[in-house]
Amino acid sequence: MDTMEPDKDFPLEYRKVLRLTDEGLVEQDRPVVREVPLTIFLNDREIVTLLCLGDHPKSLAVGFLKSEGLIHRAEDIRSLTVDPERLVVRVEVDEDTRLAEKLFSRRTLTSGCGKGTTFYNALDTLVMNRILSSLTITPAQVFHLMRRLAEDSELYKITGGTHNSALATVDDLVLFRTDIGRHNAVDKIYGECLLNGTRLDDKVLVTTGRITSEILIKTGRMGLPVLISRSAATSLAVSLADQIGVTLIGYVRGKNLVVYSGWERVRE
Amino acid sequence: MDTMEPDKDFPLEYRKVLRLTDEGLVEQDRPVVREVPLTIFLNDREIVTLLCLGDHPKSLAVGFLKSEGLIHRAEDIRSLTVDPERLVVRVEVDEDTRLAEKLFSRRTLTSGCGKGTTFYNALDTLVMNRILSSLTITPAQVFHLMRRLAEDSELYKITGGTHNSALATVDDLVLFRTDIGRHNAVDKIYGECLLNGTRLDDKVLVTTGRITSEILIKTGRMGLPVLISRSAATSLAVSLADQIGVTLIGYVRGKNLVVYSGWERVRE
Repeated sequence: MDTMEPDKDFPLEYRKVLRLTDEGLVEQDRPVVREVPLTIFLNDREIVTLLCLGDHPKSLAVGFLKSEGLIHRAEDIRSLTVDPERLVVRVEVDEDTRLAEKLFSRRTLTSGCGKGTTFYNALDTLVMNRILSSLTITPAQVFHLMRRLAEDSELYKITGGTHNSALATVDDLVLFRTDIGRHNAVDKIYGECLLNGTRLDDKVLVTTGRITSEILIKTGRMGLPVLISRSAATSLAVSLADQIGVTLIGYVRGKNLVVYSGWERVRE
Repeated sequence: MDTMEPDKDFPLEYRKVLRLTDEGLVEQDRPVVREVPLTIFLNDREIVTLLCLGDHPKSLAVGFLKSEGLIHRAEDIRSLTVDPERLVVRVEVDEDTRLAEKLFSRRTLTSGCGKGTTFYNALDTLVMNRILSSLTITPAQVFHLMRRLAEDSELYKITGGTHNSALATVDDLVLFRTDIGRHNAVDKIYGECLLNGTRLDDKVLVTTGRITSEILIKTGRMGLPVLISRSAATSLAVSLADQIGVTLIGYVRGKNLVVYSGWERVRE
């Protein structure tokens, strides 16, 4: 880890630390992953400040606003600007967002991992479409995608401080993103897909993070038929995956994997 | 992992999954960590719904409210009741909490890991006291505490789906808590300490989770002089630890550890 020379564009900072060695505690310079506050304005009103890595601010802002139901279509975005000095993203859309903002500001649901999930709003579950994609995937493809995610995780290898996610076909990664928060990494992918008009019903999401209900709902909103994680899933995430029709594959480590939900998309 | 027989009181559920074995994909029953919504009312007003493990609901509610500045002292709590069927905790305090609730409902700061950190409110940093404890700790004590945290992590060993935290003296763990969210585990500890009047300036917090600014601020609010993690810290967490005077020790794995901040409390 200490032998790697980071690209100077990586979002990290060097800090003086004490490190335990065979000679006792010694002073060293150590790369630390960057955490910055990024403030998002929608139609000139301040919506949220995300604590994040600071890279890909436009796609993070668009992905967050879309995830939270504050914007709907890329065509509605009239302007999208970043002030890199003050770490502010400004999004302007043609629709009137005041009602959506009001609903957002009232949401107070959190696992200590993300504000904004509206699942417990009964209306919301009714409007979430069941995922009908006929995509299938094999265990060998799942292992390959998880290996590729690890290969691309350069910032994690240097700092140990990030969660990684990627959009993928069943054959390879399409878009890799990393962040200090697992939700932010997924929102960056969602935003970029929305801005580029990327088709999602034939793709899968690969992530290092644990699968709670919030990440499962995000996957469902994106319309992705398959979610793959290195980590375990919670009971509520499994129930939701069954209900929405997401194939949920977790605990992908070494030669192990567990298909929690949506067995029909996994063939040997 | 599959050989362990869980205590029936553990917050987990069994789900039918497909698991890859040498004979291909086979159906198995697998323990999955429980995730439930717990709603907190303060003086008859709904404050938040936490997605959590569901254990220790009273201490989680009190710790959350105290962390967020919605309640201040244990003596102010007039009543504290749990409805286990509906997963609701009701807290009644003597003070008028409406102004604090208003400020809380306006807070929209998140790393995709927790609403509520008010650090960026300038006033808030001014009122956060610098931690002056003369506690010291050795690397051997740090390794011992991290080993003890792993030993006590039975639910994690079974489900792989939780973060663990513990309050400790420099010699051993005092109070172990686990949850699907790393913030919830710490809030359960904070709440229990508040209810029991536990002294904190001579204790340390040991955790498995990554150290972002939000966890560092929580540690500072609790008045704990030392924070120890298996994982890495972000740049903002290190800056805040320097500013508040918290000794921040991360990356405790095998024979490695890194002292990011507050070097004066670590002696060999």
